[in-house]
Amino acid sequence: MEYYSREISQLIGALSRLPGIGSKSAQRLAFHILRMPKEEVDQLGKSLMDARANVRFCKECFTLTDQEICPICASDRRNHRQIMVVESTRDLAAYEKTGKYEGVYHVLHGAISPMQGIGPADIRMKELFVRLQKEDVEEVIIATNSSLEGEATAMYISKLIKPTGIRVTRIASGVPVGGDLEYIDEVTLLRALDGRRDL
Amino acid sequence: MEYYSREISQLIGALSRLPGIGSKSAQRLAFHILRMPKEEVDQLGKSLMDARANVRFCKECFTLTDQEICPICASDRRNHRQIMVVESTRDLAAYEKTGKYEGVYHVLHGAISPMQGIGPADIRMKELFVRLQKEDVEEVIIATNSSLEGEATAMYISKLIKPTGIRVTRIASGVPVGGDLEYIDEVTLLRALDGRRDL
Repeated sequence: MEYYSREISQLIGALSRLPGIGSKSAQRLAFHILRMPKEEVDQLGKSLMDARANVRFCKECFTLTDQEICPICASDRRNHRQIMVVESTRDLAAYEKTGKYEGVYHVLHGAISPMQGIGPADIRMKELFVRLQKEDVEEVIIATNSSLEGEATAMYISKLIKPTGIRVTRIASGVPVGGDLEYIDEVTLLRALDGRRDL
Repeated sequence: MEYYSREISQLIGALSRLPGIGSKSAQRLAFHILRMPKEEVDQLGKSLMDARANVRFCKECFTLTDQEICPICASDRRNHRQIMVVESTRDLAAYEKTGKYEGVYHVLHGAISPMQGIGPADIRMKELFVRLQKEDVEEVIIATNSSLEGEATAMYISKLIKPTGIRVTRIASGVPVGGDLEYIDEVTLLRALDGRRDL
Protein backbone atom coordinates (compact mmCIF):
# COMPACT_ATOMS: atom_id res chain seq x y z
CA MET A 1 0.00 0.00 0.00
CA GLU A 2 3.00 2.28 0.45
CA TYR A 3 3.03 2.79 -3.32
CA TYR A 4 0.07 5.12 -3.04
CA SER A 5 -0.09 8.43 -1.25
CA ARG A 6 -1.23 8.34 2.37
CA GLU A 7 -4.86 9.24 1.80
CA ILE A 8 -5.30 6.78 -1.06
CA SER A 9 -3.69 4.04 1.07
CA GLN A 10 -6.01 4.82 3.96
CA LEU A 11 -9.03 4.66 1.69
CA ILE A 12 -7.91 1.33 0.17
CA GLY A 13 -7.24 -0.01 3.67
CA ALA A 14 -10.65 1.03 4.98
CA LEU A 15 -12.47 -0.43 1.97
CA SER A 16 -10.59 -3.73 2.09
CA ARG A 17 -11.80 -4.32 5.66
CA LEU A 18 -15.38 -4.62 4.35
CA PRO A 19 -16.66 -8.17 3.84
CA GLY A 20 -16.15 -9.66 0.38
CA ILE A 21 -13.81 -6.86 -0.71
CA GLY A 22 -10.24 -8.00 -1.24
CA SER A 23 -7.25 -5.77 -1.83
CA LYS A 24 -7.70 -5.68 -5.62
CA SER A 25 -11.39 -4.77 -5.38
CA ALA A 26 -10.56 -2.15 -2.77
CA GLN A 27 -8.06 -0.56 -5.17
CA ARG A 28 -10.59 -0.61 -8.00
CA LEU A 29 -13.25 0.95 -5.77
CA ALA A 30 -10.86 3.56 -4.40
CA PHE A 31 -9.82 4.78 -7.84
CA HIS A 32 -13.44 4.83 -8.92
CA ILE A 33 -14.30 6.95 -5.89
CA LEU A 34 -11.45 9.36 -6.67
CA ARG A 35 -13.01 9.95 -10.10
CA MET A 36 -16.58 10.36 -8.81
CA PRO A 37 -18.07 13.88 -8.49
CA LYS A 38 -17.16 15.33 -5.10
CA GLU A 39 -20.83 15.76 -4.08
CA GLU A 40 -21.54 12.07 -4.67
CA VAL A 41 -18.58 11.03 -2.53
CA ASP A 42 -19.67 13.38 0.24
CA GLN A 43 -23.16 11.93 0.04
CA LEU A 44 -21.81 8.37 0.27
CA GLY A 45 -19.64 9.26 3.25
CA LYS A 46 -22.53 11.00 4.98
CA SER A 47 -24.92 8.08 4.28
CA LEU A 48 -22.46 5.74 5.96
CA MET A 49 -22.04 7.84 9.06
CA ASP A 50 -25.71 8.87 9.36
CA ALA A 51 -26.97 5.34 8.97
CA ARG A 52 -24.56 4.02 11.58
CA ALA A 53 -25.31 6.89 13.97
CA ASN A 54 -29.11 6.85 13.71
CA VAL A 55 -30.14 3.31 12.95
CA ARG A 56 -31.17 1.32 16.03
CA PHE A 57 -33.27 -1.66 17.00
CA CYS A 58 -37.07 -1.34 17.01
CA LYS A 59 -38.18 -1.66 20.64
CA GLU A 60 -40.90 -4.12 19.66
CA CYS A 61 -39.52 -6.44 16.98
CA PHE A 62 -35.79 -5.55 17.06
CA THR A 63 -35.51 -4.91 13.33
CA LEU A 64 -33.03 -2.19 12.31
CA THR A 65 -34.86 1.11 11.86
CA ASP A 66 -34.38 4.83 12.38
CA GLN A 67 -37.37 5.16 14.69
CA GLU A 68 -38.07 4.03 18.24
CA ILE A 69 -40.83 1.74 16.94
CA CYS A 70 -40.53 0.57 13.30
CA PRO A 71 -43.31 1.42 10.79
CA ILE A 72 -44.53 -2.20 10.75
CA CYS A 73 -44.91 -2.44 14.53
CA ALA A 74 -46.46 1.05 14.63
CA SER A 75 -49.05 0.23 11.96
CA ASP A 76 -52.59 -0.63 13.05
CA ARG A 77 -53.26 -2.24 9.68
CA ARG A 78 -50.98 -5.14 10.61
CA ASN A 79 -52.16 -8.16 12.56
CA HIS A 80 -50.25 -7.90 15.84
CA ARG A 81 -51.45 -11.32 16.96
CA GLN A 82 -49.37 -13.06 14.32
CA ILE A 83 -45.59 -12.86 14.75
CA MET A 84 -43.12 -14.10 12.12
CA VAL A 85 -39.71 -14.92 13.60
CA VAL A 86 -36.81 -14.22 11.21
CA GLU A 87 -33.04 -14.27 11.55
CA SER A 88 -32.33 -10.83 10.10
CA THR A 89 -33.76 -7.55 8.86
CA ARG A 90 -32.90 -8.73 5.33
CA ASP A 91 -35.14 -11.77 5.79
CA LEU A 92 -37.89 -9.47 7.05
CA ALA A 93 -37.46 -7.36 3.90
CA ALA A 94 -37.67 -10.49 1.75
CA TYR A 95 -41.12 -11.28 3.18
CA GLU A 96 -42.22 -7.64 3.01
CA LYS A 97 -41.42 -7.65 -0.69
CA THR A 98 -44.09 -10.31 -1.23
CA GLY A 99 -46.61 -7.72 -0.03
CA LYS A 100 -48.88 -10.51 1.22
CA TYR A 101 -47.89 -11.00 4.84
CA GLU A 102 -50.04 -8.93 7.17
CA GLY A 103 -48.69 -9.90 10.56
CA VAL A 104 -45.71 -8.44 12.42
CA TYR A 105 -42.16 -9.75 12.88
CA HIS A 106 -39.55 -10.60 15.45
CA VAL A 107 -35.92 -10.32 14.35
CA LEU A 108 -33.53 -12.63 16.20
CA HIS A 109 -30.32 -11.24 14.69
CA GLY A 110 -28.78 -14.65 14.25
CA ALA A 111 -29.55 -18.29 14.85
CA ILE A 112 -28.48 -20.82 17.46
CA SER A 113 -25.19 -22.39 16.39
CA PRO A 114 -23.33 -24.59 18.88
CA MET A 115 -20.49 -24.87 16.33
CA GLN A 116 -19.94 -21.13 16.46
CA GLY A 117 -20.71 -20.89 20.15
CA ILE A 118 -23.93 -18.92 19.58
CA GLY A 119 -26.58 -19.86 22.12
CA PRO A 120 -30.13 -18.58 22.73
CA ALA A 121 -28.72 -15.82 24.98
CA ASP A 122 -26.66 -14.40 22.11
CA ILE A 123 -29.66 -13.64 19.90
CA ARG A 124 -32.94 -11.78 20.57
CA MET A 125 -34.61 -14.93 21.92
CA LYS A 126 -35.49 -13.75 25.43
CA GLU A 127 -37.12 -10.65 23.91
CA LEU A 128 -39.44 -12.94 21.91
CA PHE A 129 -40.69 -14.67 25.03
CA VAL A 130 -41.16 -11.36 26.83
CA ARG A 131 -43.37 -10.28 23.90
CA LEU A 132 -45.37 -13.52 24.03
CA GLN A 133 -46.07 -13.02 27.72
CA LYS A 134 -46.96 -9.35 27.37
CA GLU A 135 -48.98 -9.41 24.17
CA ASP A 136 -51.97 -11.46 23.11
CA VAL A 137 -50.42 -13.58 20.35
CA GLU A 138 -52.30 -16.24 18.39
CA GLU A 139 -49.59 -17.63 16.13
CA VAL A 140 -45.82 -17.64 15.89
CA ILE A 141 -44.58 -18.41 12.36
CA ILE A 142 -40.97 -19.55 12.44
CA ALA A 143 -39.22 -18.35 9.27
CA THR A 144 -35.59 -18.96 10.20
CA ASN A 145 -33.41 -20.19 7.34
CA SER A 146 -33.61 -23.76 6.15
CA SER A 147 -30.01 -24.35 7.34
CA LEU A 148 -28.79 -26.49 10.23
CA GLU A 149 -28.70 -23.42 12.48
CA GLY A 150 -32.09 -22.19 11.30
CA GLU A 151 -33.68 -25.58 11.93
CA ALA A 152 -32.11 -25.87 15.38
CA THR A 153 -33.43 -22.42 16.26
CA ALA A 154 -36.90 -23.32 14.98
CA MET A 155 -36.89 -26.49 17.07
CA TYR A 156 -35.78 -24.61 20.18
CA ILE A 157 -38.47 -21.95 19.83
CA SER A 158 -41.25 -24.42 19.12
CA LYS A 159 -40.37 -26.57 22.14
CA LEU A 160 -40.57 -23.57 24.44
CA ILE A 161 -43.76 -22.11 22.96
CA LYS A 162 -45.88 -25.24 22.53
CA PRO A 163 -46.64 -25.68 26.27
CA THR A 164 -48.13 -22.15 26.34
CA GLY A 165 -50.84 -23.15 23.88
CA ILE A 166 -49.87 -20.53 21.27
CA ARG A 167 -49.95 -21.97 17.73
CA VAL A 168 -46.43 -22.45 16.34
CA THR A 169 -45.89 -23.01 12.62
CA ARG A 170 -42.84 -23.39 10.39
CA ILE A 171 -42.70 -22.10 6.80
CA ALA A 172 -42.68 -24.94 4.25
CA SER A 173 -39.48 -26.40 2.94
CA GLY A 174 -39.49 -27.92 -0.55
CA VAL A 175 -38.73 -27.45 -4.20
CA PRO A 176 -38.49 -23.72 -5.06
CA VAL A 177 -40.99 -22.46 -7.64
CA GLY A 178 -39.43 -22.87 -11.08
CA GLY A 179 -36.88 -25.29 -9.63
CA ASP A 180 -35.79 -28.16 -11.84
CA LEU A 181 -36.03 -31.43 -9.89
CA GLU A 182 -32.84 -32.83 -11.37
CA TYR A 183 -30.77 -29.97 -9.91
CA ILE A 184 -32.26 -30.08 -6.44
CA ASP A 185 -30.44 -31.74 -3.56
CA GLU A 186 -31.74 -34.93 -1.97
CA VAL A 187 -32.58 -33.43 1.40
CA THR A 188 -34.83 -30.85 -0.26
CA LEU A 189 -36.47 -33.53 -2.40
CA LEU A 190 -37.25 -35.62 0.67
CA ARG A 191 -38.60 -32.56 2.50
CA ALA A 192 -40.83 -31.81 -0.45
CA LEU A 193 -42.09 -35.41 -0.38
CA ASP A 194 -42.76 -35.30 3.37
CA GLY A 195 -44.61 -32.04 3.00
CA ARG A 196 -46.84 -33.21 0.13
CA ARG A 197 -50.44 -32.05 0.14
CA ASP A 198 -53.69 -33.48 -1.25
CA LEU A 199 -54.87 -31.88 -4.45
CA MET B 1 -35.75 -0.57 -1.05
CA GLU B 2 -38.93 0.76 0.60
CA TYR B 3 -38.80 -2.24 2.93
CA TYR B 4 -35.96 -0.66 4.86
CA SER B 5 -36.00 2.57 6.82
CA ARG B 6 -34.99 5.71 4.94
CA GLU B 7 -31.37 5.87 6.10
CA ILE B 8 -30.73 2.20 5.41
CA SER B 9 -32.27 2.58 1.93
CA GLN B 10 -30.08 5.59 1.22
CA LEU B 11 -26.97 3.71 2.29
CA ILE B 12 -27.88 0.68 0.16
CA GLY B 13 -28.58 2.98 -2.79
CA ALA B 14 -25.27 4.81 -2.46
CA LEU B 15 -23.29 1.56 -2.14
CA SER B 16 -25.01 -0.07 -5.11
CA ARG B 17 -23.87 2.76 -7.38
CA LEU B 18 -20.25 1.65 -6.88
CA PRO B 19 -18.78 -0.51 -9.65
CA GLY B 20 -19.11 -4.26 -9.21
CA ILE B 21 -21.56 -3.91 -6.32
CA GLY B 22 -25.06 -5.11 -7.13
CA SER B 23 -28.14 -4.65 -5.00
CA LYS B 24 -27.60 -7.87 -3.00
CA SER B 25 -23.96 -7.02 -2.23
CA ALA B 26 -24.99 -3.49 -1.30
CA GLN B 27 -27.50 -4.89 1.20
CA ARG B 28 -24.91 -7.23 2.66
CA LEU B 29 -22.37 -4.40 2.96
CA ALA B 30 -24.94 -2.01 4.46
CA PHE B 31 -25.94 -4.42 7.22
CA HIS B 32 -22.29 -5.16 7.90
CA ILE B 33 -21.62 -1.43 8.24
CA LEU B 34 -24.56 -1.04 10.63
CA ARG B 35 -22.94 -3.62 12.91
CA MET B 36 -19.43 -2.14 12.72
CA PRO B 37 -18.15 -0.03 15.65
CA LYS B 38 -19.23 3.59 15.17
CA GLU B 39 -15.61 4.86 15.13
CA GLU B 40 -14.70 2.54 12.26
CA VAL B 41 -17.67 3.72 10.22
CA ASP B 42 -16.78 7.35 10.89
CA GLN B 43 -13.21 6.62 9.82
CA LEU B 44 -14.38 4.97 6.59
CA GLY B 45 -16.69 7.86 5.80
CA LYS B 46 -13.94 10.37 6.53
CA SER B 47 -11.39 8.44 4.43
CA LEU B 48 -13.76 8.60 1.47
CA MET B 49 -14.38 12.30 1.71
CA ASP B 50 -10.79 13.25 2.58
CA ALA B 51 -9.33 11.21 -0.25
CA ARG B 52 -11.75 12.70 -2.77
CA ALA B 53 -11.22 16.23 -1.47
CA ASN B 54 -7.42 16.17 -1.25
CA VAL B 55 -6.17 13.81 -3.89
CA ARG B 56 -5.10 15.51 -7.12
CA PHE B 57 -2.85 14.97 -10.11
CA CYS B 58 0.92 15.31 -9.68
CA LYS B 59 1.95 18.35 -11.74
CA GLU B 60 4.82 16.39 -13.28
CA CYS B 61 3.64 12.86 -13.99
CA PHE B 62 -0.13 13.19 -13.39
CA THR B 63 -0.37 10.28 -10.97
CA LEU B 64 -2.96 10.64 -8.21
CA THR B 65 -1.31 11.99 -5.08
CA ASP B 66 -2.01 14.27 -2.13
CA GLN B 67 0.91 16.59 -2.89
CA GLU B 68 1.60 19.11 -5.61
CA ILE B 69 4.50 16.96 -6.85
CA CYS B 70 4.35 13.23 -6.05
CA PRO B 71 7.13 11.62 -3.94
CA ILE B 72 8.56 9.83 -7.01
CA CYS B 73 8.88 13.00 -9.10
CA ALA B 74 10.21 14.91 -6.09
CA SER B 75 12.91 12.31 -5.34
CA ASP B 76 16.47 13.01 -6.50
CA ARG B 77 17.30 9.32 -6.19
CA ARG B 78 15.17 8.56 -9.24
CA ASN B 79 16.47 8.79 -12.80
CA HIS B 80 14.49 11.66 -14.29
CA ARG B 81 15.84 10.97 -17.76
CA GLN B 82 13.91 7.70 -18.01
CA ILE B 83 10.11 8.00 -18.20
CA MET B 84 7.79 5.00 -18.04
CA VAL B 85 4.39 5.70 -19.60
CA VAL B 86 1.52 3.85 -17.91
CA GLU B 87 -2.26 3.93 -18.24
CA SER B 88 -3.12 4.34 -14.57
CA THR B 89 -1.84 4.99 -11.06
CA ARG B 90 -2.57 1.33 -10.34
CA ASP B 91 -0.16 0.30 -13.11
CA LEU B 92 2.44 2.67 -11.68
CA ALA B 93 1.95 0.99 -8.29
CA ALA B 94 2.40 -2.45 -9.90
CA TYR B 95 5.85 -1.42 -11.19
CA GLU B 96 6.76 0.30 -7.92
CA LYS B 97 6.04 -2.95 -6.09
CA THR B 98 8.87 -4.61 -8.03
CA GLY B 99 11.23 -2.15 -6.31
CA LYS B 100 13.62 -2.36 -9.27
CA TYR B 101 12.55 0.49 -11.54
CA GLU B 102 14.53 3.63 -10.83
CA GLY B 103 13.15 6.03 -13.42
CA VAL B 104 10.05 8.21 -13.19
CA TYR B 105 6.56 7.78 -14.67
CA HIS B 106 3.94 9.45 -16.80
CA VAL B 107 0.34 8.46 -16.14
CA LEU B 108 -1.97 8.79 -19.15
CA HIS B 109 -5.25 8.02 -17.31
CA GLY B 110 -6.57 5.86 -20.09
CA ALA B 111 -5.64 4.59 -23.53
CA ILE B 112 -6.63 5.54 -27.05
CA SER B 113 -9.80 3.66 -28.00
CA PRO B 114 -11.60 4.63 -31.21
CA MET B 115 -14.34 2.14 -30.29
CA GLN B 116 -15.14 4.07 -27.12
CA GLY B 117 -14.45 7.43 -28.73
CA ILE B 118 -11.33 8.08 -26.64
CA GLY B 119 -8.68 9.95 -28.63
CA PRO B 120 -5.23 11.30 -27.70
CA ALA B 121 -6.84 14.55 -26.51
CA ASP B 122 -8.90 12.68 -23.90
CA ILE B 123 -5.90 11.30 -22.03
CA ARG B 124 -2.74 12.97 -20.65
CA MET B 125 -0.93 12.64 -23.97
CA LYS B 126 -0.19 16.30 -24.68
CA GLU B 127 1.30 16.61 -21.19
CA LEU B 128 3.79 13.85 -22.07
CA PHE B 129 5.07 15.75 -25.10
CA VAL B 130 5.30 18.98 -23.11
CA ARG B 131 7.51 17.09 -20.64
CA LEU B 132 9.69 15.68 -23.41
CA GLN B 133 10.28 19.15 -24.82
CA LYS B 134 10.96 20.74 -21.45
CA GLU B 135 13.08 18.04 -19.82
CA ASP B 136 16.19 16.23 -20.94
CA VAL B 137 14.83 12.73 -21.45
CA GLU B 138 16.89 9.78 -22.71
CA GLU B 139 14.34 7.02 -22.86
CA VAL B 140 10.58 6.62 -22.90
CA ILE B 141 9.47 3.12 -21.82
CA ILE B 142 5.92 2.43 -22.97
CA ALA B 143 4.19 0.21 -20.42
CA THR B 144 0.59 0.54 -21.54
CA ASN B 145 -1.47 -2.64 -21.24
CA SER B 146 -1.05 -5.45 -23.73
CA SER B 147 -4.64 -4.89 -24.96
CA LEU B 148 -5.81 -3.53 -28.30
CA GLU B 149 -6.12 -0.05 -26.80
CA GLY B 150 -2.79 -0.28 -25.01
CA GLU B 151 -1.03 -1.37 -28.19
CA ALA B 152 -2.66 1.40 -30.25
CA THR B 153 -1.55 3.94 -27.65
CA ALA B 154 1.99 2.55 -27.66
CA MET B 155 2.12 2.78 -31.47
CA TYR B 156 0.83 6.35 -31.43
CA ILE B 157 3.37 7.50 -28.85
CA SER B 158 6.30 5.79 -30.54
CA LYS B 159 5.47 7.29 -33.94
CA LEU B 160 5.46 10.79 -32.50
CA ILE B 161 8.59 10.39 -30.36
CA LYS B 162 10.88 8.55 -32.78
CA PRO B 163 11.58 11.61 -35.01
CA THR B 164 12.86 13.49 -31.94
CA GLY B 165 15.71 11.00 -31.47
CA ILE B 166 14.65 10.02 -27.94
CA ARG B 167 14.91 6.26 -27.41
CA VAL B 168 11.44 4.63 -27.25
CA THR B 169 11.03 1.11 -25.88
CA ARG B 170 8.06 -1.16 -25.18
CA ILE B 171 7.92 -3.62 -22.28
CA ALA B 172 8.13 -7.24 -23.47
CA SER B 173 5.06 -9.25 -24.19
CA GLY B 174 5.20 -13.04 -23.78
CA VAL B 175 4.54 -16.01 -21.55
CA PRO B 176 4.15 -14.91 -17.91
CA VAL B 177 6.64 -16.38 -15.45
CA GLY B 178 5.19 -19.63 -14.11
CA GLY B 179 2.73 -19.71 -17.03
CA ASP B 180 1.83 -23.10 -18.42
CA LEU B 181 2.21 -23.05 -22.22
CA GLU B 182 -0.88 -25.15 -22.82
CA TYR B 183 -3.11 -22.57 -21.15
CA ILE B 184 -1.69 -19.55 -22.94
CA ASP B 185 -3.51 -17.98 -25.88
CA GLU B 186 -2.05 -18.14 -29.39
CA VAL B 187 -1.36 -14.44 -29.76
CA THR B 188 0.76 -14.48 -26.62
CA LEU B 189 2.59 -17.61 -27.78
CA LEU B 190 3.42 -15.96 -31.12
CA ARG B 191 4.54 -12.77 -29.34
CA ALA B 192 6.81 -14.86 -27.12
CA LEU B 193 8.27 -16.54 -30.20
CA ASP B 194 8.84 -13.22 -31.97
CA GLY B 195 10.52 -11.83 -28.88
CA ARG B 196 12.89 -14.81 -28.40
CA ARG B 197 16.43 -14.08 -27.28
CA ASP B 198 19.78 -15.87 -27.68
CA LEU B 199 20.93 -17.77 -24.63
